[in-house]
Amino acid sequence: MYLLIKGGTVVTATGAHPADVLVEGERIAGLFSPDSTPPVEGAQVVDASGKYVIPGAVDVHTHMQLPFGGTSASDTFETGTRAAAFGGTTTIVDFAVQRTGERIPDGLAAWHAKADGNCHIDYGFHMIIGGVDDESLKAMDSLVDAEGISSFKLFMAYPGVFYSDDGQILRAMQKARDNGSMIMMHAENGIAIDVLIGQALARGETDPINHGLTRPAELEAEATRRAISLAQVAGDTPLYIVHLSASQALEAVAAARDTGRNVFAETCPQYLYLTLEDQLGAPGFEGAKWVCSTPLRSKHEPHQRDLWRGLRTNDLAVVSTDHCPFCFREQKELGIGDFSKIPNGIGGVEHRVDLLYQGVVDGKLSLARWVETLATTPARMFGLYPRKGVLAPGSDADIVVYDPNGRTRISVDTHHMNMDHSAYEGYEIAGKVDAVISRGTVLVANNTFHGHKGHGRYLPRGLSTYLL
Amino acid sequence: MYLLIKGGTVVTATGAHPADVLVEGERIAGLFSPDSTPPVEGAQVVDASGKYVIPGAVDVHTHMQLPFGGTSASDTFETGTRAAAFGGTTTIVDFAVQRTGERIPDGLAAWHAKADGNCHIDYGFHMIIGGVDDESLKAMDSLVDAEGISSFKLFMAYPGVFYSDDGQILRAMQKARDNGSMIMMHAENGIAIDVLIGQALARGETDPINHGLTRPAELEAEATRRAISLAQVAGDTPLYIVHLSASQALEAVAAARDTGRNVFAETCPQYLYLTLEDQLGAPGFEGAKWVCSTPLRSKHEPHQRDLWRGLRTNDLAVVSTDHCPFCFREQKELGIGDFSKIPNGIGGVEHRVDLLYQGVVDGKLSLARWVETLATTPARMFGLYPRKGVLAPGSDADIVVYDPNGRTRISVDTHHMNMDHSAYEGYEIAGKVDAVISRGTVLVANNTFHGHKGHGRYLPRGLSTYLL
Amino acid sequence: MYLLIKGGTVVTATGAHPADVLVEGERIAGLFSPDSTPPVEGAQVVDASGKYVIPGAVDVHTHMQLPFGGTSASDTFETGTRAAAFGGTTTIVDFAVQRTGERIPDGLAAWHAKADGNCHIDYGFHMIIGGVDDESLKAMDSLVDAEGISSFKLFMAYPGVFYSDDGQILRAMQKARDNGSMIMMHAENGIAIDVLIGQALARGETDPINHGLTRPAELEAEATRRAISLAQVAGDTPLYIVHLSASQALEAVAAARDTGRNVFAETCPQYLYLTLEDQLGAPGFEGAKWVCSTPLRSKHEPHQRDLWRGLRTNDLAVVSTDHCPFCFREQKELGIGDFSKIPNGIGGVEHRVDLLYQGVVDGKLSLARWVETLATTPARMFGLYPRKGVLAPGSDADIVVYDPNGRTRISVDTHHMNMDHSAYEGYEIAGKVDAVISRGTVLVANNTFHGHKGHGRYLPRGLSTYLL
Amino acid sequence: MYLLIKGGTVVTATGAHPADVLVEGERIAGLFSPDSTPPVEGAQVVDASGKYVIPGAVDVHTHMQLPFGGTSASDTFETGTRAAAFGGTTTIVDFAVQRTGERIPDGLAAWHAKADGNCHIDYGFHMIIGGVDDESLKAMDSLVDAEGISSFKLFMAYPGVFYSDDGQILRAMQKARDNGSMIMMHAENGIAIDVLIGQALARGETDPINHGLTRPAELEAEATRRAISLAQVAGDTPLYIVHLSASQALEAVAAARDTGRNVFAETCPQYLYLTLEDQLGAPGFEGAKWVCSTPLRSKHEPHQRDLWRGLRTNDLAVVSTDHCPFCFREQKELGIGDFSKIPNGIGGVEHRVDLLYQGVVDGKLSLARWVETLATTPARMFGLYPRKGVLAPGSDADIVVYDPNGRTRISVDTHHMNMDHSAYEGYEIAGKVDAVISRGTVLVANNTFHGHKGHGRYLPRGLSTYLL
Ligand SMILES: [Zn+2]
Ligand SMILES: [Zn+2]
Ligand SMILES: [Zn+2]
Ligand SMILES: [Zn+2]
Ligand SMILES: [Zn+2]
Ligand SMILES: [Zn+2]
Ligand SMILES: [Zn+2]
Ligand SMILES: [Zn+2]
Repeated sequence: MYLLIKGGTVVTATGAHPADVLVEGERIAGLFSPDSTPPVEGAQVVDASGKYVIPGAVDVHTHMQLPFGGTSASDTFETGTRAAAFGGTTTIVDFAVQRTGERIPDGLAAWHAKADGNCHIDYGFHMIIGGVDDESLKAMDSLVDAEGISSFKLFMAYPGVFYSDDGQILRAMQKARDNGSMIMMHAENGIAIDVLIGQALARGETDPINHGLTRPAELEAEATRRAISLAQVAGDTPLYIVHLSASQALEAVAAARDTGRNVFAETCPQYLYLTLEDQLGAPGFEGAKWVCSTPLRSKHEPHQRDLWRGLRTNDLAVVSTDHCPFCFREQKELGIGDFSKIPNGIGGVEHRVDLLYQGVVDGKLSLARWVETLATTPARMFGLYPRKGVLAPGSDADIVVYDPNGRTRISVDTHHMNMDHSAYEGYEIAGKVDAVISRGTVLVANNTFHGHKGHGRYLPRGLSTYLL
Repeated sequence: MYLLIKGGTVVTATGAHPADVLVEGERIAGLFSPDSTPPVEGAQVVDASGKYVIPGAVDVHTHMQLPFGGTSASDTFETGTRAAAFGGTTTIVDFAVQRTGERIPDGLAAWHAKADGNCHIDYGFHMIIGGVDDESLKAMDSLVDAEGISSFKLFMAYPGVFYSDDGQILRAMQKARDNGSMIMMHAENGIAIDVLIGQALARGETDPINHGLTRPAELEAEATRRAISLAQVAGDTPLYIVHLSASQALEAVAAARDTGRNVFAETCPQYLYLTLEDQLGAPGFEGAKWVCSTPLRSKHEPHQRDLWRGLRTNDLAVVSTDHCPFCFREQKELGIGDFSKIPNGIGGVEHRVDLLYQGVVDGKLSLARWVETLATTPARMFGLYPRKGVLAPGSDADIVVYDPNGRTRISVDTHHMNMDHSAYEGYEIAGKVDAVISRGTVLVANNTFHGHKGHGRYLPRGLSTYLL
Repeated sequence: MYLLIKGGTVVTATGAHPADVLVEGERIAGLFSPDSTPPVEGAQVVDASGKYVIPGAVDVHTHMQLPFGGTSASDTFETGTRAAAFGGTTTIVDFAVQRTGERIPDGLAAWHAKADGNCHIDYGFHMIIGGVDDESLKAMDSLVDAEGISSFKLFMAYPGVFYSDDGQILRAMQKARDNGSMIMMHAENGIAIDVLIGQALARGETDPINHGLTRPAELEAEATRRAISLAQVAGDTPLYIVHLSASQALEAVAAARDTGRNVFAETCPQYLYLTLEDQLGAPGFEGAKWVCSTPLRSKHEPHQRDLWRGLRTNDLAVVSTDHCPFCFREQKELGIGDFSKIPNGIGGVEHRVDLLYQGVVDGKLSLARWVETLATTPARMFGLYPRKGVLAPGSDADIVVYDPNGRTRISVDTHHMNMDHSAYEGYEIAGKVDAVISRGTVLVANNTFHGHKGHGRYLPRGLSTYLL
Repeated sequence: MYLLIKGGTVVTATGAHPADVLVEGERIAGLFSPDSTPPVEGAQVVDASGKYVIPGAVDVHTHMQLPFGGTSASDTFETGTRAAAFGGTTTIVDFAVQRTGERIPDGLAAWHAKADGNCHIDYGFHMIIGGVDDESLKAMDSLVDAEGISSFKLFMAYPGVFYSDDGQILRAMQKARDNGSMIMMHAENGIAIDVLIGQALARGETDPINHGLTRPAELEAEATRRAISLAQVAGDTPLYIVHLSASQALEAVAAARDTGRNVFAETCPQYLYLTLEDQLGAPGFEGAKWVCSTPLRSKHEPHQRDLWRGLRTNDLAVVSTDHCPFCFREQKELGIGDFSKIPNGIGGVEHRVDLLYQGVVDGKLSLARWVETLATTPARMFGLYPRKGVLAPGSDADIVVYDPNGRTRISVDTHHMNMDHSAYEGYEIAGKVDAVISRGTVLVANNTFHGHKGHGRYLPRGLSTYLL
């Protein structure tokens, strides 16, 4: 019943110190100064000497088996959460979906059905609202009160599927202000983008790179600013911009934050490492692997530099993956001859912890911010703290032992996601996940998976504790 | 040898959770989930039920027995640290002083002599450099390397005493960039201010309020912007603006921070609560009690609103006191008939924790930010973390038990500072310091002081761990 | 055939100097230094001693007999242009209208029919495009090429009548970029506003003031920023924001202008003088007189101060009237019990020159800017310069003699607009229109009208010559 | 006594129109529509067909025979004004100088003595104040009242020679606010720069390029912001930043202007065309030709792009030359082996009109802005309007006929300045000065000089008429 992680350096959102961590059952029983650690009879000991001990990472943006564009994301909750665990992520918050014309309870039930009994790690749900109306507004209240869902995602793009107009957005924001929940926003001006897409296709520009060229950074920035305005009109509704990729959008978020607004943003590893030219613009149809929205941005503009800086300044509070994997064969290939038909999404739930640790090694991020952006802040942001996101007495024993001297090579040959390619194929990066513990159970050790599906439980969430 | 703080809610920079804290000797041995706390034989138990358990507060800006304007600050290291302890502060970082024309080692030795053996709590030193030249630049290196002093304060005001011109500032910043230390800046354009002072006196405007009127907010902002520019030219030298009081200066700090610069700022409780009109403008000579620099600002401008917001957004990272007490009789009275002769300073080392907790009650600050701005960030900023500023295994057992249901009344009749008046006379505020522990020794319990002078030790400090 | 304006001070966009103006037929033949003026045989002499001689004012935003909300603006082209002339305005540019579902050529023909033969002063047309589609995009080209219409107004409000979505706006802007024309924008987020209107009505808040309360400044600013973004995506299409009323919108315009964008804005006298509380909030239904969109803004916010400043800095380039008069009886009264049914509009075509001259007297605007914002810039902005907007040899002889020592009292009893009330009832202001000449014909002298309908001719306009 | 400029296109600050200009004696008698021009008996006719007719250009920043660094600027008032006339400039405002320790009346008298009887074109003086004290403050009043000097230049660099500290600057600004005059500012933080210079020389970096490297853009921006702040504290004193060269300084000016402050700036042709690398960094000592302060900026930064944009947006209101010529031999050579000894200055008084016209051809500036920045605004800014800067009846007949189809080749072989090299050697640019008329006298025609020294008269100036 006891597990003792011994000899490591605990890294928190504010720094690092040597400490042993004692787990009793599913919870953390205590943390000790190494020379004060009492003998714990019968405890299983995990040797963390020379390693970091961090809270299990929390990925608040995944789309397991999401239906999209006539196909479905290729990771199930089972394969996806297993891959997540391999990468040091012990909690995901996925998106249950209401499409335009559907009912919220049906969407939520469908997602519970997909996940229930299949997950290797704990999971929660945000709710995508694709049809703001009186009924769905009422449902927002009951999801907060009774279902443990305290965050709602809206889309300023994808009319007819997910899109909300500004009046719908305003209404949902008013509701969120009243019930204390968080609005998550896909901030792209999809109405204008669709004009650009139509014009590109009419000109015969059908290659994958046109996906990026028709979604200019300014239209992400515009939508970001508009969402911030509408949240202000609604009464400073907490607003969380998902998958922020453009410098100009970051600038809008930073400006709002300077005035004390409850405006937050996440970015994703793909925006920190991959580019419009090098990946999305790969020869032939290859670039389809990197079709995601918001798109990869141009390397001739300072987006990546600015995003790393935003992570340092906390204008970007969270790194999530927006994990939404599609295989190249048969899935991405749906868009041959028409980039707009390529399923949108990149798979990366397994690599976030490592890719960000590379940033630490490169001097782009402090060790404390590494933990904060991957675990502590996401947990606080979405009502999971202190159960998740922190190594505190009483917290769930979600613990990662991380080897700073290890190396990780990313490849389709070795990854655990259900994808026929890797967005980061061949990346050799610093650091390595050494052991992964979920609620006291060792899931990964010695590169071997010891978990079983169904271990992961649904996490009803409370309100955000990250508000200003 | 054991002390167990039991039943409380530990508050950290990221949130709160129930936990018991075990102290062994001078250090924290461990933290336990309440239901996992083992019996500790012979431990002295502090009952923290219903109370917050927080790291001892760290005040990084005090001036015990500082000579100024022909007199000296009225608190000795003994009386001042005793008062600090009463208020929940267990570490101070005071300023050793080199005046123009003096030598740094002499100044440092003098301050060690004042403090050594007299302090009730641990203390460190910043060094004020009032004469940047080849010799003092060299001394900066040796202070960092050998004396545990990693921060240097410069003045853009007080020519002939503390003032550095922009060339001197640039040279000191280059040195700090090279040795990794932090430049702290008194940012007011003292050269322009002295013109305004001379003009006011020439017009016969001698009352205390003219102290504020001749130090306009714009001249604080100007100096703040200039310091930020010079730090940039020096190579992004870490810069910490002390006692920021004006909205416009805050705006400059926020703008620099948005670009990823290592620019930080503190404010002080007096700027959050007191105003030019109500205090500095009190009838007759009464306002002299509130003569400090930077001055109290006008209530007709949004300074206080903006400073509270800055604390929420972390554009203000720290609250310190700038404790520099002078008695009204014989000290402040030196300036009767000439406001420019009033010794500059307000005493408040005892009240910071309570005054900020009132902000928590008023909804202006979260509980986590209360701890972060008072303890965790100051410790990180000035190289004391994780020894100070956090309740972590292995940290110094500097612990405050805080009663959120208590009440504190501030008055000269009850305070412990060596002052004949209180800047906050009659304030009735929420919260109360319940017990104060310094390196495992209970200094304050049941409103009674149990410490003894000499308990406090000098803290050699490392480099800041708060840099971006 | 000759007219000589003698003894006055000519005011231009850059200053003032004494000069005599000689008119030959419909054009200005020359300007003379007073002591060099040759005798002109048979010339009619207008004595301008002690008076300003300025180019006839150009009002680029009027809506004569505009159908709106089941009624029509109460001034015909005849009554409206007569009133304009009385006020020193010798050119208007009115809006021909395509409503959603209508065809552009039909709208233009209808407006020509209304105006033709009825105007007292020269007039041009902008085209309102209420239905951007392939056909109307094509029509934009032919209007530029063949009809002398080089500016197109779009609406971000009034869905189903005038509203364009962001895709339609983008397409029209692309077209304008290609053919060199100007996009004029009614910048309010009407989709969000309609939600607020519905909610107010549902709460029983039906008084006129709710017209303003449901159109918050932030939603004007949001739309302004969005229009600027879309114009950027379209390729720096020239953009002209109509009836700007909010500080935040002005800030957006100024920010765009600082980056060298071709973004311009006008404001109107009502926003410079009238307020939400004092006029729109008048007791009972009285406030209906001041229902216009964008609405009058709160006097507790710095809008008026900022708008005057914007006129000084040229971030506001033009003052127009948005003249759209409705009588109180039977017209404004359509909205009793439902503010959203009140016809939107204020009549003021007669008073712009005087109201702005009051700003000169009050030190809010220079004499040069008075002429520039009323005449020179509107003419340059909309392709009428140097025919209109300047007193240059060869220009149309549209000339106003203005008496700086006169006084003007505004009242329904004395005005010449076809309205049963005045928005400025009882205003006593400095300055007075003394004589008004249109293409060499004296229309107004000694407070008497000498013109005849049909004198005014349609002005085909060229492209803007005001672009950066 | 009559001169008729016939057939040309008059260009003004707001546009262009065909007009004939009649000169009677020294003044403009009238402007005519070409078809209305009466026969003028005995008039000398200048054929301007196919050409632009513009007001004589006004260069408000020259330093004829300025003593500097042990030598003197190589153009006398005679040679310099002759060269100016060749280039289409008919008015200069030069700087009379008070050095630190000197008296203002002496400086002014000395400059009158140099200029009196020697100038080919009209001239005025600004006064450089190198020693702000009670006496010189008093002198400011008498210069405004009695000497026709309404602008005063201060330096934030060159301690011991020109430098004013912030207190002195504040006092001079207060005085200017009171007497209505303008403060012109050399905005560079010379105190910090001198540290960088000393360090560079100590490292043995003595080449001319180090002149630029030790004067970083940020230190120009810092000083610009500081000057703006001090002017605000003084009470919105009109402030004119001279020779602005850095994007960051421009940004500061634009920000101040957006808030309605009376802050203006000029740039010079050298900053629009020449760069740190290509000119100042020329091999060997060659770069000395381009040593001027502020320095040429790096081509790897967007300064030139931003300066052209600033000219379009009017955040840069004026183009002057800062003409301060030194020969390479014996003058620039004083700095061989020590860049800090190179006399600071570039000669260009002859080329401003042509170099800016190239910007018109390149689409960087409109024709109207060409005239406005070269003639109209400088005249308004410095109290010379409408006598200078405009072709209005009654104005001085300072007129340039400019051939847009001509070409100008710049070379030491052909220029008329007293310099042994040209900063623009070999430039082939569009446009050509065709004829130059000063107060009715033709100075230049057919590339031949017809003037005589002493024609130019001292211009007592009034207050600025360009204030907001
Ligand atoms: Zn999305
Ligand atoms: Zn910020
Ligand atoms: Zn997503
Ligand atoms: Zn201090
Ligand atoms: Zn409108
Ligand atoms: Zn601007
Ligand atoms: Zn309108
Ligand atoms: Zn100069």
